Amino acid sequence: MGTLPQRLLLGPGPSNVNPRVLAALSQPLVGHLDPAFLAVMDEVQAGLRELFGTRNALTLPLSATGSAGMEACLANLLERGDEVVVGVAGVFGERMCDVATRMGARVTRVETEPGTPLPEDGMLEAIERVRPRVVAFVHAETSTGVLQPVEAIAACARKAGSLVVLDCVTSLAGLPVELDRWGIDAAYSGTQKCLSAPPGLSPVSFSERALTRVRERATPVQSWYLDISLLAGYFGQERVYHHTAPISAILGLAEALRVVLEEGLPARIARHAAAARQLREELAPLGFTPLVADGYRLPMLTTLRLPEAVLAMGEAPLRRRLLDRHGIEVGGGLGKLAGQIWRVGLMGENARRSSVETLRDALARELA
Amino acid sequence: MGTLPQRLLLGPGPSNVNPRVLAALSQPLVGHLDPAFLAVMDEVQAGLRELFGTRNALTLPLSATGSAGMEACLANLLERGDEVVVGVAGVFGERMCDVATRMGARVTRVETEPGTPLPEDGMLEAIERVRPRVVAFVHAETSTGVLQPVEAIAACARKAGSLVVLDCVTSLAGLPVELDRWGIDAAYSGTQKCLSAPPGLSPVSFSERALTRVRERATPVQSWYLDISLLAGYFGQERVYHHTAPISAILGLAEALRVVLEEGLPARIARHAAAARQLREELAPLGFTPLVADGYRLPMLTTLRLPEAVLAMGEAPLRRRLLDRHGIEVGGGLGKLAGQIWRVGLMGENARRSSVETLRDALARELA
Repeated sequence: MGTLPQRLLLGPGPSNVNPRVLAALSQPLVGHLDPAFLAVMDEVQAGLRELFGTRNALTLPLSATGSAGMEACLANLLERGDEVVVGVAGVFGERMCDVATRMGARVTRVETEPGTPLPEDGMLEAIERVRPRVVAFVHAETSTGVLQPVEAIAACARKAGSLVVLDCVTSLAGLPVELDRWGIDAAYSGTQKCLSAPPGLSPVSFSERALTRVRERATPVQSWYLDISLLAGYFGQERVYHHTAPISAILGLAEALRVVLEEGLPARIARHAAAARQLREELAPLGFTPLVADGYRLPMLTTLRLPEAVLAMGEAPLRRRLLDRHGIEVGGGLGKLAGQIWRVGLMGENARRSSVETLRDALARELA
Repeated sequence: MGTLPQRLLLGPGPSNVNPRVLAALSQPLVGHLDPAFLAVMDEVQAGLRELFGTRNALTLPLSATGSAGMEACLANLLERGDEVVVGVAGVFGERMCDVATRMGARVTRVETEPGTPLPEDGMLEAIERVRPRVVAFVHAETSTGVLQPVEAIAACARKAGSLVVLDCVTSLAGLPVELDRWGIDAAYSGTQKCLSAPPGLSPVSFSERALTRVRERATPVQSWYLDISLLAGYFGQERVYHHTAPISAILGLAEALRVVLEEGLPARIARHAAAARQLREELAPLGFTPLVADGYRLPMLTTLRLPEAVLAMGEAPLRRRLLDRHGIEVGGGLGKLAGQIWRVGLMGENARRSSVETLRDALARELA
């Protein structure tokens, strides 16, 4: 086995993983129907319910990454010809449109400029006009660093009889997520952001309303792998074989959840907020300015406009030097923002003053 | 972190994992676009090509389990209304029909009794009659323990202008797999069987003919997550972001492939064959007899009819005692064979005389 370089992962994910989680990953395997493993799975489901702020029975780690979580939420709730209103505030809202279109749904897009939240009046107007089967949007847009207020849109959607799908990939375990209080019917996340577990699993949660909708479908869910009524057989009391659960990844996630719950969600959320403030303060003297207006900035992912000096030398070569000389990974812009911004993640284990100082010192040296 | 019990995994997968692989899983994370990680991914792709017996450029580990590999192969090659001929020799052939039906394909089934291979004449007749877009069947049927001869069916399918999809979940790294020589267009496997890596990834391979078909589709692939033309962007020279690769799992797979290639495929295949012979010999005196006829038995997964003594005491309680008292997992029957047979896996790390002896001694004690 070759030796990999040590990295401080300050991009849009993955984040660095606690050594306890790495140790959990390397436990000898047990079977996916072993009572000892099923007990761990029960614990994982309970932990995820706490993070998602929900009592949804069907809250579980999907055996694929966060992008498959998006697909699972939309595939289970939508049938061909169904109407869906999608809020597009960046690459991941755009991806929702692509995913829903492939399912044969009729997509109404509500767009906004990258770096700004969805227009609430635009969303409400579209929901009331279309009265769609599903309203879908992103809580924490990883491509732009924008935090989307959820409650007004979700309330309007429920009033219109729509089901609400929320992308919590980047928000879970770093921002308050309250599925039950907000009235969200299906949500998905990833493990490699504020949970600080390796990528590879997608925590998802489905409400009773969502499951009723799935039971009333006229056609089967297009994806056998992501069909939540089949998954319910394994995650329910019956423990019916569906597919082989990714044992080691689940053991890692279980330990990551223990780390999160030992710290406590309020403390963890406060730590993310404090680290983001420190980052903005420390990088301002170097000419990096926030893309997003105050009040809508994500704490775990800060998007920064680049100073002239960085644009002049090329932002991609500078990111490469940060990686090669300092072992620090930061993210470039995606989509329309490519080449214009950086995305600096302070997620989970990395939401600390020491990460900010390491990055600041490396940048100061490179820009001197 | 609680302590999990030590298990000898002699079921249909997962198998036990080499300590080198467990160590590789617990390396600190690097990013999924880090040059150091991309080098590991290149090595993984090259190793998988060797195991699959192919030069297919698009040979890669999908970020989901083997069942998603099945879905990926069918979803990329089939459009609504396409004809597909599926060989059904057990639960996994049956699953192919379900998956293809959900995609809107028209399925022609060729069935056989559980425990027997597909009727070659029946397959050839159906292929020539239907001239389908795709012919799909299972190389090593994990539910029945049957080895399916591939070459005649694949040759007939290609003559009819069909694309051939082969399930290699259980055969890869334990039996010869020769995609290029056999003329297979899409194949998928899992990591938790003869590769002896944890479950969670699905090695897949697509031929140039398959990629041409994907380019000529009239409609997009239903699944964004499994769309092979999008995946080609990350796995090709461009390294375009699609989804976040499951870093730790890939590091584990890389080490598992090194273990396999250091042993050498011919030696590994011979080891699986020898272990299966020993198993049949050692369990015969206890009254366990092979379900499958000589010549069609899988070496890595032996299906055994149960002696009267076991049926009398209940096979499920006996499996539970093997687990609780001896730490040994064996598999029960699936589908029509539930309650009638056991499935004993001697896969990868476990294809050894010592596994057979441990199982024999435990059974002898329980049945004494």
